[in-house]
Amino acid sequence: MITREHLEQARERAREYFDRAGIVLTQAESAGIEVADFGLGELERTGLEIVTYVNTSRCCAKELVMFPHQTCPEHRHPPVEGRPGKEETFRCRWGEVYLYLPGDPPPSPACTPPPAPEGAYTAFHEVVLRPGEQYTLPPHTLHWFQAGPEGAVVSEFSTTSRDDLDIFTDERIARIPVVEG
Amino acid sequence: MITREHLEQARERAREYFDRAGIVLTQAESAGIEVADFGLGELERTGLEIVTYVNTSRCCAKELVMFPHQTCPEHRHPPVEGRPGKEETFRCRWGEVYLYLPGDPPPSPACTPPPAPEGAYTAFHEVVLRPGEQYTLPPHTLHWFQAGPEGAVVSEFSTTSRDDLDIFTDERIARIPVVEG
Repeated sequence: MITREHLEQARERAREYFDRAGIVLTQAESAGIEVADFGLGELERTGLEIVTYVNTSRCCAKELVMFPHQTCPEHRHPPVEGRPGKEETFRCRWGEVYLYLPGDPPPSPACTPPPAPEGAYTAFHEVVLRPGEQYTLPPHTLHWFQAGPEGAVVSEFSTTSRDDLDIFTDERIARIPVVEG
Repeated sequence: MITREHLEQARERAREYFDRAGIVLTQAESAGIEVADFGLGELERTGLEIVTYVNTSRCCAKELVMFPHQTCPEHRHPPVEGRPGKEETFRCRWGEVYLYLPGDPPPSPACTPPPAPEGAYTAFHEVVLRPGEQYTLPPHTLHWFQAGPEGAVVSEFSTTSRDDLDIFTDERIARIPVVEG
């Protein structure tokens, strides 16, 4: 649940990040920035600000803003109608983002997941992306990511996005946000 | 045919456009910017400078630099192995680009195609894209595009890119460039 006022504040803040990254939006895109709090009501800690440029039956491109230390919680993209799940490439445009995947954790991880029920975060192999750096995630790979101390702007290039089908490790999570009237 | 020296000059010039657009490249991307002269040996007039971020069997993302009035010549993306051809979204990031498609021409077109054999340019419906504006092209649609007077930086989000299969209206054109030793 996110209040209308909090939604507009988050959009305004996201616009500042787009400006810093030199990314130009249309008026309609800017007015409609998607603010995803994943139903947890703790946007500063767990959330994403999103502009979807295109999402057809074949491919998709988005721009993501992350506030400082904001986390997109652990999830995977399952196969859909007999086809492999969503394949994603994350490309950092501004700031830095830490991507966590299954595999060996580093000796000193850069991030801590937000407080969550036991078992809500399981992947701790760390990949850091700074401006110009990118990572392509195979379909169905568990992953979560967190922005560095200044926040981040990240491009996502992918196959079709079906957010409603994403499987989150934290069972409390609802991907499609509910806005309070 | 493009000389090694001309290739490096074009790359250096393309880097200036990426800088102006605020787009950060890795060192490897910057060193390997693709310079396509389409085999015509008139890069200033007919050509593209390209960084391919990702091109898997499912989707693709590229960044294109176009010098002032530089043209990407008319072509289409045919069906491949029983699947529809490449679907492309062009998003202008910097400068302006004029996209030409089948349909009614405007009373005063902004661009003139480069000199070419008769019939090499047939599509004259005009769509102008300024920063933040984009257009999604259905598969197999004839199209060509030309940068405005300052040049342009354009993101391309698409399904898999198979440049070798592109069909150009101008039969002189070879998409895969030949570099002189």
